[in-house]
Amino acid sequence: MAFDPSSLKYDANGLIPVVTQDHSSHEVLMVAWMNADAVKKTLDGGKVTYWSRSRQKFWVKGETSGHVQTLVEMRVDCDRDCLLVLVDQTGPACHTNRRSCFFTSVNAEGETEIMKPMV
Amino acid sequence: MAFDPSSLKYDANGLIPVVTQDHSSHEVLMVAWMNADAVKKTLDGGKVTYWSRSRQKFWVKGETSGHVQTLVEMRVDCDRDCLLVLVDQTGPACHTNRRSCFFTSVNAEGETEIMKPMV
Repeated sequence: MAFDPSSLKYDANGLIPVVTQDHSSHEVLMVAWMNADAVKKTLDGGKVTYWSRSRQKFWVKGETSGHVQTLVEMRVDCDRDCLLVLVDQTGPACHTNRRSCFFTSVNAEGETEIMKPMV
Repeated sequence: MAFDPSSLKYDANGLIPVVTQDHSSHEVLMVAWMNADAVKKTLDGGKVTYWSRSRQKFWVKGETSGHVQTLVEMRVDCDRDCLLVLVDQTGPACHTNRRSCFFTSVNAEGETEIMKPMV
């Protein structure tokens, strides 16, 4: 039976959070959002496509930067309200040119930058 | 300078999404939510503590099941609107007794269970 993106649980804005992980290193690269159409585009075309909340339009990751994400596998969680995408990431995933958006470590004492920009 | 949980960006409900990753295997275990107090409790006590949206109260992970998550490291993303917690997970993270909540693989053709319950 074909997968139906509308079978996922979306929030009040019609969005579902998406965790993006490097399929080989298993590094968590970023978290962004998809609507049902973005889920379908990602599954059909293999280029990871989010919904940009700030620009209110589809965001084909890397379309302007070249830092594309090719889908390797999509997984849904037990509650059907979150996705995990395993990707082949070209270059940095973060707009700061770091490999991952999670480059700041936090503890009670403060914050530490743990990753430098790639380029 | 001490870390101030109120410096993070929370949604309209005062919550921030949290990706939970096994610190050694790098498996993504689950995604849940914290409010500023849950962030503080997690950093101060080292037991990962979420905010349960369904029960509207703190959720010390594993408090009843024993499947606790001990904090190894917390990271914040570039937009300060998402957290990544690296944890030492006792037993399964998922309420279905699977190690991870992401046990269902999805493609255009359908869904496949890729992980069995641990116990």
